Amino acid sequence: MIKFSDVKIVLLETSHPGNIGSVARAMKTMQFSELHVVNPLCEINDISFAMASNAKDILESAKVSKNLNIVLKDCNFVIGTTARQRDIPIEIINPKKLADNISKYQYGKIAILLGNESRGLTNDQLSKCNIGCHIPSNKAYTSLNIASSLQIILYEILMKSNTGMSNINKIDKKNLASHDKVTAFLEHTDKVLKDINFIKDDRPMISRKIQHIFKKADLTEEEINILRGILTAIENHSQ
Amino acid sequence: MIKFSDVKIVLLETSHPGNIGSVARAMKTMQFSELHVVNPLCEINDISFAMASNAKDILESAKVSKNLNIVLKDCNFVIGTTARQRDIPIEIINPKKLADNISKYQYGKIAILLGNESRGLTNDQLSKCNIGCHIPSNKAYTSLNIASSLQIILYEILMKSNTGMSNINKIDKKNLASHDKVTAFLEHTDKVLKDINFIKDDRPMISRKIQHIFKKADLTEEEINILRGILTAIENHSQ
Repeated sequence: MIKFSDVKIVLLETSHPGNIGSVARAMKTMQFSELHVVNPLCEINDISFAMASNAKDILESAKVSKNLNIVLKDCNFVIGTTARQRDIPIEIINPKKLADNISKYQYGKIAILLGNESRGLTNDQLSKCNIGCHIPSNKAYTSLNIASSLQIILYEILMKSNTGMSNINKIDKKNLASHDKVTAFLEHTDKVLKDINFIKDDRPMISRKIQHIFKKADLTEEEINILRGILTAIENHSQ
Repeated sequence: MIKFSDVKIVLLETSHPGNIGSVARAMKTMQFSELHVVNPLCEINDISFAMASNAKDILESAKVSKNLNIVLKDCNFVIGTTARQRDIPIEIINPKKLADNISKYQYGKIAILLGNESRGLTNDQLSKCNIGCHIPSNKAYTSLNIASSLQIILYEILMKSNTGMSNINKIDKKNLASHDKVTAFLEHTDKVLKDINFIKDDRPMISRKIQHIFKKADLTEEEINILRGILTAIENHSQ
């Protein structure tokens, strides 16, 4: 598994200041921090900082340089992004496969290269890479914004690493009610619906259909308590 | 499986014109096309069109309206995005799980809601959703740009659907050389390296190590031919 602090994000000949900022934001949301800007065709300016939002620290520590070889000198795995087919001999894989692959080995420094917005990486730049990465997309329009491309690639790496991620995902099944609590609730429901003459003894199917609704809902204990409260309220009201 | 043309992307109270354009671009790259803008806090202007790049058609056909309920009227599954924990009862899953889930059922129209850039969806807006979607991210900075968030969600749906995708991914193993071709090449290599006195009969290990290098390379037939050309050139040169 790689250390995120060992990954260099390298922008080549970027022409829009806003994109450099958007890249910084994408990096920070996915826990990456080392940004290199090689031969930019624009300045890092106020627009960059506006687009970086709360990732200003990454922009401030970005290293601007002129020589890609020097940036890659200490890297032992270099990834090149591409939106289009190339005639050079290089393996091209999707971000999921990339994340799988780099999770298998021990690496030192890794670099991910993103080319100019209009033309992408040159063949010469891509030839410096160990592997290419292409994001499956609309055949008729494969051109993702560079920050969006990077966002997907880093997201796949983060998902694969499964470390330090925000986790607000929740599925309310922790306190799923026990079988006897559900059964008691369903019996209570049946009784109340008979009391108010909704269910009649000669029509058992309607009773089963109502039970099915509540079984599908994967009720928690708290929810059962709320529903039994409703049943009791109905009972009290109809006395 | 869902039809992409049945998915509505719904922006609520968006405040930056550029983001509306970036969302259109993210949609088109992932094969989605129906954009709704509800109560925007900005205009769709030149900046929007610049950020949309070649997805201008999606911006031009975007529907601006004032009432979310009307937009959702014909939807039978509504997804709400969120970067933060909520106190309302709603299941929240990650984009991979979301793509898995919606691939299992038959739906009519589906909507994906994205809230205002600063505060996200309100609890009231999120309560209209069947499910929430959170992108695992940096615990200390979960705030992805809205277009980047959407890019990841639509990418996961596209990857799961596996339909009509660009596929320039290539692994050069189609024409992997046959075992006897590789063996003949390795024998040829051995012979030449002995001829030029690089390999000596009393050091078989170096011969095995060189064989290992080429075995790891998963050589194609074409590559074998190139390498044998080099061996022949060495033979001719040293005569």
